[in-house]
Amino acid sequence: MSKHIRVITPITSDLRAASDFDGFQSPSLTVTTTRLETGPASIECEFEEALAVPGVVARAIEAQNDGANAVVIDCMGDPGLNAAREVVAIPVLGPCQTALHLAAISGHKFGVVTVLERLEPLFDDMVATYGLTSKYAGLRAVDIPVLELEQDMERCTCALIEQAICSVIEDRAHVVVLGCTGMLGCAEAVRAGLLDAGFDVPVIDPVPATIWTAAAFIDMGLSHSKHSYQPPPEKPIAGYEFPVLDA
Amino acid sequence: MSKHIRVITPITSDLRAASDFDGFQSPSLTVTTTRLETGPASIECEFEEALAVPGVVARAIEAQNDGANAVVIDCMGDPGLNAAREVVAIPVLGPCQTALHLAAISGHKFGVVTVLERLEPLFDDMVATYGLTSKYAGLRAVDIPVLELEQDMERCTCALIEQAICSVIEDRAHVVVLGCTGMLGCAEAVRAGLLDAGFDVPVIDPVPATIWTAAAFIDMGLSHSKHSYQPPPEKPIAGYEFPVLDA
Amino acid sequence: MSKHIRVITPITSDLRAASDFDGFQSPSLTVTTTRLETGPASIECEFEEALAVPGVVARAIEAQNDGANAVVIDCMGDPGLNAAREVVAIPVLGPCQTALHLAAISGHKFGVVTVLERLEPLFDDMVATYGLTSKYAGLRAVDIPVLELEQDMERCTCALIEQAICSVIEDRAHVVVLGCTGMLGCAEAVRAGLLDAGFDVPVIDPVPATIWTAAAFIDMGLSHSKHSYQPPPEKPIAGYEFPVLDA
Amino acid sequence: MSKHIRVITPITSDLRAASDFDGFQSPSLTVTTTRLETGPASIECEFEEALAVPGVVARAIEAQNDGANAVVIDCMGDPGLNAAREVVAIPVLGPCQTALHLAAISGHKFGVVTVLERLEPLFDDMVATYGLTSKYAGLRAVDIPVLELEQDMERCTCALIEQAICSVIEDRAHVVVLGCTGMLGCAEAVRAGLLDAGFDVPVIDPVPATIWTAAAFIDMGLSHSKHSYQPPPEKPIAGYEFPVLDA
Amino acid sequence: MSKHIRVITPITSDLRAASDFDGFQSPSLTVTTTRLETGPASIECEFEEALAVPGVVARAIEAQNDGANAVVIDCMGDPGLNAAREVVAIPVLGPCQTALHLAAISGHKFGVVTVLERLEPLFDDMVATYGLTSKYAGLRAVDIPVLELEQDMERCTCALIEQAICSVIEDRAHVVVLGCTGMLGCAEAVRAGLLDAGFDVPVIDPVPATIWTAAAFIDMGLSHSKHSYQPPPEKPIAGYEFPVLDA
Amino acid sequence: MSKHIRVITPITSDLRAASDFDGFQSPSLTVTTTRLETGPASIECEFEEALAVPGVVARAIEAQNDGANAVVIDCMGDPGLNAAREVVAIPVLGPCQTALHLAAISGHKFGVVTVLERLEPLFDDMVATYGLTSKYAGLRAVDIPVLELEQDMERCTCALIEQAICSVIEDRAHVVVLGCTGMLGCAEAVRAGLLDAGFDVPVIDPVPATIWTAAAFIDMGLSHSKHSYQPPPEKPIAGYEFPVLDA
Repeated sequence: MSKHIRVITPITSDLRAASDFDGFQSPSLTVTTTRLETGPASIECEFEEALAVPGVVARAIEAQNDGANAVVIDCMGDPGLNAAREVVAIPVLGPCQTALHLAAISGHKFGVVTVLERLEPLFDDMVATYGLTSKYAGLRAVDIPVLELEQDMERCTCALIEQAICSVIEDRAHVVVLGCTGMLGCAEAVRAGLLDAGFDVPVIDPVPATIWTAAAFIDMGLSHSKHSYQPPPEKPIAGYEFPVLDA
Repeated sequence: MSKHIRVITPITSDLRAASDFDGFQSPSLTVTTTRLETGPASIECEFEEALAVPGVVARAIEAQNDGANAVVIDCMGDPGLNAAREVVAIPVLGPCQTALHLAAISGHKFGVVTVLERLEPLFDDMVATYGLTSKYAGLRAVDIPVLELEQDMERCTCALIEQAICSVIEDRAHVVVLGCTGMLGCAEAVRAGLLDAGFDVPVIDPVPATIWTAAAFIDMGLSHSKHSYQPPPEKPIAGYEFPVLDA
Repeated sequence: MSKHIRVITPITSDLRAASDFDGFQSPSLTVTTTRLETGPASIECEFEEALAVPGVVARAIEAQNDGANAVVIDCMGDPGLNAAREVVAIPVLGPCQTALHLAAISGHKFGVVTVLERLEPLFDDMVATYGLTSKYAGLRAVDIPVLELEQDMERCTCALIEQAICSVIEDRAHVVVLGCTGMLGCAEAVRAGLLDAGFDVPVIDPVPATIWTAAAFIDMGLSHSKHSYQPPPEKPIAGYEFPVLDA
Repeated sequence: MSKHIRVITPITSDLRAASDFDGFQSPSLTVTTTRLETGPASIECEFEEALAVPGVVARAIEAQNDGANAVVIDCMGDPGLNAAREVVAIPVLGPCQTALHLAAISGHKFGVVTVLERLEPLFDDMVATYGLTSKYAGLRAVDIPVLELEQDMERCTCALIEQAICSVIEDRAHVVVLGCTGMLGCAEAVRAGLLDAGFDVPVIDPVPATIWTAAAFIDMGLSHSKHSYQPPPEKPIAGYEFPVLDA
Repeated sequence: MSKHIRVITPITSDLRAASDFDGFQSPSLTVTTTRLETGPASIECEFEEALAVPGVVARAIEAQNDGANAVVIDCMGDPGLNAAREVVAIPVLGPCQTALHLAAISGHKFGVVTVLERLEPLFDDMVATYGLTSKYAGLRAVDIPVLELEQDMERCTCALIEQAICSVIEDRAHVVVLGCTGMLGCAEAVRAGLLDAGFDVPVIDPVPATIWTAAAFIDMGLSHSKHSYQPPPEKPIAGYEFPVLDA
Repeated sequence: MSKHIRVITPITSDLRAASDFDGFQSPSLTVTTTRLETGPASIECEFEEALAVPGVVARAIEAQNDGANAVVIDCMGDPGLNAAREVVAIPVLGPCQTALHLAAISGHKFGVVTVLERLEPLFDDMVATYGLTSKYAGLRAVDIPVLELEQDMERCTCALIEQAICSVIEDRAHVVVLGCTGMLGCAEAVRAGLLDAGFDVPVIDPVPATIWTAAAFIDMGLSHSKHSYQPPPEKPIAGYEFPVLDA
């Protein structure tokens, strides 16, 4: 039976090309995508993250109604991760939580290389909440806003390699995690750059890593704990419309 | 000069009476209140918390435009705390963060007594994010939903005393924090109940405690770090309307 | 291309039936198995764990030489995990490390239910080393030695359900991890028992979970960091024979 | 009713001018001051801190007898904080504990800039005891002894700005706490220096911050937990004279 | 060359008999004792601990002047440990710090059984300051004041055994530390009681353990770091007289 | 009665000269030594460490049978520490665990200077397992393999001094621990080098420190907790021969 994973890009911009997930499609795996109609053009702070959450929850309900077997949120801030888990039953995975735990499995300590330094409090707080502070070598930033990343992928890749090397040498990272899902596809080049510098260090591309982990969750019949993420009580909500979850 | 504090009750229900903050009004302090037009009737999970955030941010902008000197969010989930801090310059305080730090100042370890057991992951995560895990004796719940609290304050108070005593004896709490802002006004009775049981333990009522702390922030000229909570970048946002912040 | 995962059961007993992994075989995945010729009959302490390590490393070299794409060590003590990672290049996964991180992804805190209480120091130390102390609700034991588990699977399952319920109620676990790979196949019954008791809590069967995660590692092209697990220097070793790793 | 706060400067030197707290006096707040007759001229190590404790306790008893509503200890080592809390009932606040918790409320991580590097173990230990290690960006020192601070306030301020900038850039502090109460009055200049360098970072002047927090404690009817700080048992004490606490 | 260790009992009571340390005297080790002339009759809170510190420092100076090779402070609150280390060069050891580290070397987690429950904040804070929180199973109390301990050693021993068993069963302690130096000599009986209950658990008697550790420090030529405990600066001190340290 | 300590050098090389422990022999202390017949020539990774464990356990059994009162494992990786503790009753001490706890007793934070940077994950994991993370200033390496250390002790000592100074200045270590037992005898020169640089910082030579601590364990009648390290169950073991432990 084919597994169906829905990737929700929690912004209103057209960041993802239809072909971005071509490499995942197979007889046993289907990846479908969607993005938001209400919310921010990109996510670079907690305010923008908050504006994405209602849309992520709505899209997660749609995904479950569409028969998807898992949801992947396509943003390293994991916006709406817990809220969506409260609402749907199929596994919902965030690339930050997933990639950081994979990194912790893969080596001694991990470093994160993201877009902007201002995200440090957000990453530190996520790392603490996910319980991984002792495995965290720290954050580095390339100082390029999200929506400029794909306009100059070469500049982005060079900056990523430079910061990844700093992460290994100065922060003593043993695994590098790309810290923005807009960096999709750069991992191989960053890993090559690290190898050139003498460091045989894995580089985790969070969205692919999370899709494959979601496939594994489906295969092992695992979803998030509904004891941790209990369904919202029935009560009036003003100003938001959500799809009805199919029984 | 009179200090002006705006209390934002981040729900659409009419939980607060106009008179709830009468005791704070003085020539040197004015407390004004507001609630949301869009959002949940009450907040008992992360989904509902998320739906409150856009409204909290909008009300925080209004507060600053109205000349308020500080904002207090009237919910123990601190919904929108960081998002609002990114947007406005006046201090924004959340009762959970504030009350827990006051509790840590006041004694060895603090326990929290809240409405529902399902909130344990939310409180644990807030405690970790606020950096207070080593001072946290744990959560107890009275098992009464938020909107039923004021329908039977006597039942609520009895249950609070019972759980507060458990928190002191079994969890070894030395300070008790009321874990829902709907418990406003119960602290004195809970403290009396603890004293009757032989425990001279402070009980912190989070909203009053946060209002007085906000007044202290104003007196000391302190606001949150704009280095931690940098303003959101200019970018398109679809589906939300926010007041314009006065220059 | 078919993925090939080698499961190394690090004991000399014939604990595994040939059919134990039938459910994993497919056109895209082949699971092969092996066990040790030198080492303990079962592993229930650090001494026995240590005696398994040289055999695990030898079997890992064979696995890589045989063209396996990943190795899974079939014991919750993860014996030889780091040593094997130093020696081979293909990903080597331990069920304890893997299952605990999956549990941390899946819910608020996880509890472990294992065979014997004497294993508490070993689990606590692994949890600390893997960086997951803050997500760990603690250990429970069914008090049945490893090699008796399969002699009376019904007794084992009943005891597991009982301890899993204690883990949820008393230790506040939100996810349960089976703490011995000899419990293979019990997860569904334990999950059903928890549901009967009113707790919708995932139960992780560590070896299947690790096999699927190994498949995901292969799909995402990820292996452990050779910066963390650098190859042993060339030097004389007395009294051990190891297969030569193919170039 | 006017609040009365007694500031105890726990040294025998005449460091404080009568006018130092003029800015706090108002119809609703009275600040009175006192210093020690026995003890060290200034406090720069644990030996000197210990010699200040008996005097702090005696002065705290006097304060309560004089009708003060709260006590503030005027030294960043918080000498006698817990001992005084055991003896008196009115709230006793230390500027280190109070300022660090206010800093934790105000931003992501805080740095401390103090007089001498030798104080690092003392600050690290206080931070750990107060439960704030995860919010602590570390200590910087201006290398000026306490009693020289006020002899050349300009040199002191310049050095403070320099170290505060290092704290933000190198230690990644988001809030700066002045680490010696002898730096009273420098916060505004340090904040201006940080703004000039491009960092919108709050600077906390610990004694004023603690006085305003003490006022808030009085307003909210909060004192330290007498369960944490139980009264000393009656027993013979040789060589010390203490005032009798009024019934 | 004979090692000379000075035990300072930091109270004014005659708790110690001359013969208490007879068992340590040998051609290679001399133990001498002293107590305070100013200070409390016994130590059961932070106030009393503080009053002991000046006397401990004075006695430590005398000890070094008398040619002692090390100082042991005979109280589990380690009063004056750091202050004395600042003043003298010979190693100064506290029984709490020493016994807890020995316990951490000896087994998985240690529990402490002390006199009074009110000491919990003091022990928790010492454990945190000494960096041992993760090895600490918690505190139990026999509810007998210090000066009553030796009046009824049988009652004391019975209560210690009872609490030690609770510490092992309920707190999961693997090593037990006696939590008051007034319990000197009870360790053997408590260990026998634990063995009778089926637990082969070491029981550490802190003062003997610290004396033997002090002897080991002397043998290995180790003293405390004078970088951590730098000498107090020269400055006026009012109201205290200290012996002059011989050059 | 003379104490007898057996030092097990867990490698097959002839690293130790017969005279290395001459300084310890006295009427009250006898130090005997042994090394392995099977295992690695030196230990510089987890693979080699694992190969040493069976030999360490065998030698520990022999030591107890020979009437030794304690065992010291002569390698900073503490290979076989827990396994040997499970098998024998006499105290077994590892130089890493012992030296790090002694360092924690001696000063604020300790740094470790070892042979190779690749050992960082091993040391970090040991520090975490031993519960000392908060006292750990970090690792420095001289970049000299174990078996080259004694070929050029002067080069080794110079490099050690250089890295020890970095540890104090950059990592803020207050105590330095030599991180390889092959550095035996260098501590005095490193301490002198630190003093020359202005830092009065103790330097711990781990094997001597552990021998003296083992002597103290014998004097205080302390051994490791058999509750933590319970004897291995009786069961078949293939491919290993162990001496029989005398009843």
